[in-house]
Amino acid sequence: MNYLAFLQKEIHSAAFATIAADGRPQVRIIDIMLCDESSLYFLTAKGKEFYRQLTEQQFVAVTGVKDQKAVSLRGKVRIADPALLDEMFEQNPYMKEIYPGNTRKALEAFQIYEGEGEFFDLTCKPVFREAFTLSGSTAYALSYHIIDACTGCGSCLAVCPQSCISSASVPYRIAAEHCLHCGACRKVCPSGAVRFD
Amino acid sequence: MNYLAFLQKEIHSAAFATIAADGRPQVRIIDIMLCDESSLYFLTAKGKEFYRQLTEQQFVAVTGVKDQKAVSLRGKVRIADPALLDEMFEQNPYMKEIYPGNTRKALEAFQIYEGEGEFFDLTCKPVFREAFTLSGSTAYALSYHIIDACTGCGSCLAVCPQSCISSASVPYRIAAEHCLHCGACRKVCPSGAVRFD
Repeated sequence: MNYLAFLQKEIHSAAFATIAADGRPQVRIIDIMLCDESSLYFLTAKGKEFYRQLTEQQFVAVTGVKDQKAVSLRGKVRIADPALLDEMFEQNPYMKEIYPGNTRKALEAFQIYEGEGEFFDLTCKPVFREAFTLSGSTAYALSYHIIDACTGCGSCLAVCPQSCISSASVPYRIAAEHCLHCGACRKVCPSGAVRFD
Repeated sequence: MNYLAFLQKEIHSAAFATIAADGRPQVRIIDIMLCDESSLYFLTAKGKEFYRQLTEQQFVAVTGVKDQKAVSLRGKVRIADPALLDEMFEQNPYMKEIYPGNTRKALEAFQIYEGEGEFFDLTCKPVFREAFTLSGSTAYALSYHIIDACTGCGSCLAVCPQSCISSASVPYRIAAEHCLHCGACRKVCPSGAVRFD
């Protein structure tokens, strides 16, 4: 599955988080206008606090959901080629009603060009998650996993909501792609054999 | 319109933003389990980074959208009465599949109990926005407005995408509830009469 295309075409209206002037998080809904193989494009108006935050922080966290399938990512942001503005309006004609005629000049095109994210699907049983990068390189994601200190006592098996711990061999093995990250296994393990890193 | 109820019942799956260990924003989709007149309730698992961030920062920014109607808010967070956990599962029975049986013990209930937000409706022409507080007290929101330095030259009228500046009297007047915050009027005003505060 192409997660960037899913985010742009299917979810389309996503949440973009930055840090506000008070040092705390701020988040608002932004439509994703275009995507290519390794980046996303969106617009904002030059008079907004969001514009100032983007140009200063050059970083944004994004998430969106549709039908219990969510995509989240964090990445670097830069101002995009202004020539893309007209293409964005062609691909998203509803924008012509919000910014009619020449008023689109108030807008700036931005690109998320580097970063990593995660897809999370609650419609699967067990749930399914997968990390990805915008560049297509191997993604590194934090995960719960079991180290050699595992004695195979079985305590963790009873508390895993997704039954995604295999006891076929010792140390036991957590199927990271089905893990909720709830931490119940780590809490009950008498041997300190569950790690999250 | 009751914006908290719209966020909980209609949007339901919203974006929750915090600050990650790297000092940058992080955002993920969280379902809003319950609401009352002045607060929202949600769950997260104790093994998650999000749980740690919530207990440390005691603050969260939330946004969600449905059918081009968005609600965003920022507010204080605290751990809620654990007795609410079972009520949340009763009101949201799909949670029983994700955390079956006793595995719900891995979860903690949180409450957003103080804060302020904004409703934004793109289906209206012109767009409609309204600030609100969780407590029901008068909301204070940043807005574009025109001060006495306005000469009535008309420059701003031509660039407002929503045609929401009235020239019936001088100083002109911006209808804040229909303003996109694009800043085009401020940019073209030769008298510096447009403020955003």
